[in-house]
Amino acid sequence: MAFEFYYWPMIQGRGEVVRLALEEAGADYIDVARLPGDQEDNRAAILEILQDTTQEYPPFAPPFLKDPENNNLMIAQAANILNYVAPKIGLAPKDEAGRIFAHQIQLTVTDLLMEVHDTHHAVASALYYEDQIEESKKRAANFIEHRIPKHMGYYEQVITNNTSESGWMIGDALTYPDLSMFQMVEGLRYAFPNALAKVEATYPKMIALRDKVAEQPNTAAYLSSDRRIDFNEMGVFRHYPELDAD
Amino acid sequence: MAFEFYYWPMIQGRGEVVRLALEEAGADYIDVARLPGDQEDNRAAILEILQDTTQEYPPFAPPFLKDPENNNLMIAQAANILNYVAPKIGLAPKDEAGRIFAHQIQLTVTDLLMEVHDTHHAVASALYYEDQIEESKKRAANFIEHRIPKHMGYYEQVITNNTSESGWMIGDALTYPDLSMFQMVEGLRYAFPNALAKVEATYPKMIALRDKVAEQPNTAAYLSSDRRIDFNEMGVFRHYPELDAD
Repeated sequence: MAFEFYYWPMIQGRGEVVRLALEEAGADYIDVARLPGDQEDNRAAILEILQDTTQEYPPFAPPFLKDPENNNLMIAQAANILNYVAPKIGLAPKDEAGRIFAHQIQLTVTDLLMEVHDTHHAVASALYYEDQIEESKKRAANFIEHRIPKHMGYYEQVITNNTSESGWMIGDALTYPDLSMFQMVEGLRYAFPNALAKVEATYPKMIALRDKVAEQPNTAAYLSSDRRIDFNEMGVFRHYPELDAD
Repeated sequence: MAFEFYYWPMIQGRGEVVRLALEEAGADYIDVARLPGDQEDNRAAILEILQDTTQEYPPFAPPFLKDPENNNLMIAQAANILNYVAPKIGLAPKDEAGRIFAHQIQLTVTDLLMEVHDTHHAVASALYYEDQIEESKKRAANFIEHRIPKHMGYYEQVITNNTSESGWMIGDALTYPDLSMFQMVEGLRYAFPNALAKVEATYPKMIALRDKVAEQPNTAAYLSSDRRIDFNEMGVFRHYPELDAD
């Protein structure tokens, strides 16, 4: 039976790293809020779960995944979902140390996604971007100067240190953190094209990994399908030219 | 053999949820950077690992934990450490669904800690607080208005929905998310005493859980020892009166 995936239908957001994994694996899944039909009805399926006050293990926020083959277990938090589902769909490292490291990388990506979100919401998620542009400009400038090099440099080092010299993050095969690296490069290119253009040559292994991921048949098919939502100004990665480098 | 725990010696920070678990369990561990002796030397042990460019599975940042009984496996990210160590020290739920839910709660606490940090660093971690006070005031006001109720309300609901009616988060015994709830209430009380005083009565189960945790013998002994670092203005939870409610 198919996994049921729940995430907002209009954005990639925090859910995209899960969609990428399910797609690359060719897993049987339903993207519940993107089923054909009325979009409001589809969003209602998410809200119903969020507002159900009787659940013993309620989610705090989307994304969440239901596994009908495990007593309809409902798992929230993207990194938690990946840690659970990746071994079942063939995208986890085979040994314990590798799986723990994969999860560690994913949690670091989770931190990064929050930092990226806050480049355009420096004051509060509850406010419009237009009401926090000046604060966001300062925050984005610091993010470009300090945080992009810190994260990209770290991931580049991970690929370099991989003793198998496979070009992947962990071991000799693609695992789910590789998909998150792809997403990070794509997102940063979209949000901060000038800033990325200046530093990409510093991280050649990351760019090569991004290209290898994009060439995987299942992922390539997904990226060219309408299941891949375009980046837009509702998601985590947003392109506001005034926040980019010159 | 003892676990080796690595975290900055002057702050609770992101590492405190791990210290609380190791202490409550009475686990055999060494807090490497807080060993007797020269503090600079102790910090050097952390920096040496962070700067070692030969590790196949390098950490991005502290905290990290080394397990000498598992090939010196090194685990980074606090929630990842807890997910690994809690079953070994008797602080994890017994069934898979409970363990996954415990980790989900911990990841939600991780998000909250980042949000708390950003109430006093609204522009950038790399800048002094004094250089971002105005932005931080706006961010803290929004955090108090929207995010404290969102998080506290969710955790209160989790305790309410626990069918065992134990007063704990999951099942009928203390597990590591309970310790993180204690830490969250303590931290918010320290950072935003006026704001917390106004809303505590709204979350009676959370406050009762906080009190039950504080009464556990091992935790009580830890809290009154000098192993528990005081809250201060270098950590995640900081008390700046101008950021609190009136």
